[in-house]
Amino acid sequence: MSTMLNHPFYPPNLNPTGYAANTMSISAILGAFAIAVVSIIGFTSIVLKIRPSISRGDKILVGWFVFKGYFVFNHQTMPRRLDLLGQMWKEYAKADSRYMTMEPFVLCMESITAFAWGPLCYFIAWMIVADSPHRHPTQMIVSMGQLYGDVLYYATSIAEEKYHGVSYSRPETFYYWGYFIFLNSFWILIPAFCMYQSYSAMVGVFRQSTVRSAKKNLKFWGSFTHQMEK
Amino acid sequence: MSTMLNHPFYPPNLNPTGYAANTMSISAILGAFAIAVVSIIGFTSIVLKIRPSISRGDKILVGWFVFKGYFVFNHQTMPRRLDLLGQMWKEYAKADSRYMTMEPFVLCMESITAFAWGPLCYFIAWMIVADSPHRHPTQMIVSMGQLYGDVLYYATSIAEEKYHGVSYSRPETFYYWGYFIFLNSFWILIPAFCMYQSYSAMVGVFRQSTVRSAKKNLKFWGSFTHQMEK
Repeated sequence: MSTMLNHPFYPPNLNPTGYAANTMSISAILGAFAIAVVSIIGFTSIVLKIRPSISRGDKILVGWFVFKGYFVFNHQTMPRRLDLLGQMWKEYAKADSRYMTMEPFVLCMESITAFAWGPLCYFIAWMIVADSPHRHPTQMIVSMGQLYGDVLYYATSIAEEKYHGVSYSRPETFYYWGYFIFLNSFWILIPAFCMYQSYSAMVGVFRQSTVRSAKKNLKFWGSFTHQMEK
Repeated sequence: MSTMLNHPFYPPNLNPTGYAANTMSISAILGAFAIAVVSIIGFTSIVLKIRPSISRGDKILVGWFVFKGYFVFNHQTMPRRLDLLGQMWKEYAKADSRYMTMEPFVLCMESITAFAWGPLCYFIAWMIVADSPHRHPTQMIVSMGQLYGDVLYYATSIAEEKYHGVSYSRPETFYYWGYFIFLNSFWILIPAFCMYQSYSAMVGVFRQSTVRSAKKNLKFWGSFTHQMEK
């Protein structure tokens, strides 16, 4: 620890590397964020007019996956290039200072989100449009990754406060409940809905074709067992 | 930080709460662990003789899920009751001291493993035996949870060392490569295989019944869209 810097993050004795204060106001940052969300979902739904057979529920899901892909894919690489996203993350870090300190769990979870779930979100959007048989298995994997990552994200922060008395969030309701709890709850609710949807679709299709499925399994495991017996 | 205790964990300046040295030798602990693994898998395969139609590959998987269930379900509750498992964890902590310090990520990941993946492993073992349509979707969720948890487990430890210069493992090859890397690699390889198996089964069954599946989706989303239009 060198000199103590004047910063808005919690705990107050934190020393975030190379911190510089934001120049944009909170309302400008939140406004830009809202415009980005609406434009991406709007743009996606216009593009989807070329395939009118897709149900409205699936159109919303395509928009979600395109938005998620854009968001997680860019937030790792753009802070250095685009000042806006950098300022957004610094604003959000008031609700979770782990984003300013290279905290190992947040760093690893966000890196996997950016490099695995990000690109896969685009793939799923495409699979929904193309009605691919890979859609539900992939949607299940990515949604599970997002859900579990977010559950651990909440849980680690709460455990740190409970067992070690360290809070990463400013105490104001706006930051803790507005940013930390509310914004992240979408990463719980929407993946949970996607998992429910994929789970139902899978159970339904397995139930309908039990006979075919049994034959396929037998063939799959038959070759496996055969190789083991060699 | 109060008084510095004499303990075998890394980093050496760690202060594990209420540490008491193990009384059993390393070979006794590892021997007991090996006996536990072999007895559970052996017992499971004897029980499975009642259903000879199950392929050998699936029998091994049932054993894996029963073992996993037993292991994760008990290691949280038994250290206080059974001295053996407590000593096993203290021995393992030489390769990862986070188990001695209530480190938030390991604490949360292990709790979710014990209370969610543990019981679900027993369910999956039963679903494989019963040839349930829920088997592959559930196997996918639990395997994904184990795989992602283990990837984050490795990654957070490596990130902590790389970015903050803190190693949780004793430097000897036996602890780092033997315990930390080798033992945990099973939680990567077997879930990855299970996911591959479930993914293939799902894509196969969706491909075979595209028409039926499409009808079902239409019905599912039809009612959803219908409710939204109200």
